[in-house]
Amino acid sequence: MSGWLAVAGIGPGGAALITPEVTDALAEATDVVGYAPYLARIAPRAGAAFHASDNRVELERAAHALTLAAAGRCVVVVSSGDPGVFAMAAAVFEALEAGPETWRTLDIRVLPGITAMLAASARAGAPLGHDFCAINLSNNLKPWPVIDHRLRLAAEADFAIALYNPRSVARPDDFARALDVLREACGPERPILFARAVSTPEEALRVVTLGEARSEMADMRTLVIVGSSRTRRIDRPGGSLLYTPRFAA
Amino acid sequence: MSGWLAVAGIGPGGAALITPEVTDALAEATDVVGYAPYLARIAPRAGAAFHASDNRVELERAAHALTLAAAGRCVVVVSSGDPGVFAMAAAVFEALEAGPETWRTLDIRVLPGITAMLAASARAGAPLGHDFCAINLSNNLKPWPVIDHRLRLAAEADFAIALYNPRSVARPDDFARALDVLREACGPERPILFARAVSTPEEALRVVTLGEARSEMADMRTLVIVGSSRTRRIDRPGGSLLYTPRFAA
Repeated sequence: MSGWLAVAGIGPGGAALITPEVTDALAEATDVVGYAPYLARIAPRAGAAFHASDNRVELERAAHALTLAAAGRCVVVVSSGDPGVFAMAAAVFEALEAGPETWRTLDIRVLPGITAMLAASARAGAPLGHDFCAINLSNNLKPWPVIDHRLRLAAEADFAIALYNPRSVARPDDFARALDVLREACGPERPILFARAVSTPEEALRVVTLGEARSEMADMRTLVIVGSSRTRRIDRPGGSLLYTPRFAA
Repeated sequence: MSGWLAVAGIGPGGAALITPEVTDALAEATDVVGYAPYLARIAPRAGAAFHASDNRVELERAAHALTLAAAGRCVVVVSSGDPGVFAMAAAVFEALEAGPETWRTLDIRVLPGITAMLAASARAGAPLGHDFCAINLSNNLKPWPVIDHRLRLAAEADFAIALYNPRSVARPDDFARALDVLREACGPERPILFARAVSTPEEALRVVTLGEARSEMADMRTLVIVGSSRTRRIDRPGGSLLYTPRFAA
């Protein structure tokens, strides 16, 4: 019985953004567990069973993976982006903490990946080049007053702000309200990046101002970055670049 | 003349954390530019000239790389971690904006990498599993009152807080002051992670409370993560895990 569990980040979409560490873990796995669209990005391999699950069953998926590892299997849980950023790693540890004491001796590793904001930032220039924060707008994770409070404090701190899962089906109006808060706190001229499906064939980038931003510019595949007060826009033939200088003043 | 410039993230240290995209760019480069210790991590190759520079000359290094690309060379600027997070990408765009108009038509790409906080978070568990921020304490980048203000707002927003470059030679006392601010704002029981040189042979992790934290626990190779009010510690035989649950309440 020498099972193990690796929670592996497979990046935002493109195979060229998957680390060799993750590729090696997948090559050794007897079981690969994940949300079906993420599993579809992994090449099938003889000797590796794929266990696809629906979205929003993260805890059940995590418990299933832990059960397999405890039974001696070599298990990779695949997670989009980085598993530690609004993804599967926290769910695995929630399940671990709630589960049987024996799970605590399991060999568990988290394998980092390219999270969406890094891929989006790279495509746009370097909008996260100075201090920044990351806020998940996904539905059901926190009440609106918490989001409102965090956005206002983030603006006051003059962070660049990365927004994950900006528009959810269950709460389609929260992103429009978030844009209102940001316009009020940062002013209408502040640049905002909508980066959709970066590193996939559907990739689309758009840079506008907060005054021009509309909630319809985002969907669940979009990563949004709002610049800080010092973020600059360089217009060039290939499109606008956004970057935030390294110095505060 | 079809030169290009790629600003490439080579991750925190381990070769298994370098993306294939970056490896491919290095294989095509005629010139590799970077801070000498980062260049030392790249295998030399016939046909690729290495241009090593000192630390703290980021703008000169960036201008040099842009000049080479403008002359038709295929140039990779290597950056530790992710180039867009407190690293070379912002310096390249600062130099681009200040430079000749012709530079604006250059083929410039930023290739993302595993930034230190993702590698540290993965090793420790998932302390960045909910909303978080990243603050650079590096000397000369911002005055202390800005750091003080941001730390207090970040604590009020209840972000987990990643601190880059916590202790600098030029301002050795700022990190001790930052710990004082954090103790005051978050209380002495809040967990704090010191992750040094993750993914290298010198890797060392330590989880303590803010009450136990001392500035000497960090150096310039250390990434620090302060948990949010909801960050949990799981004690297990292999050492403590830190994770922040996905839900706000």
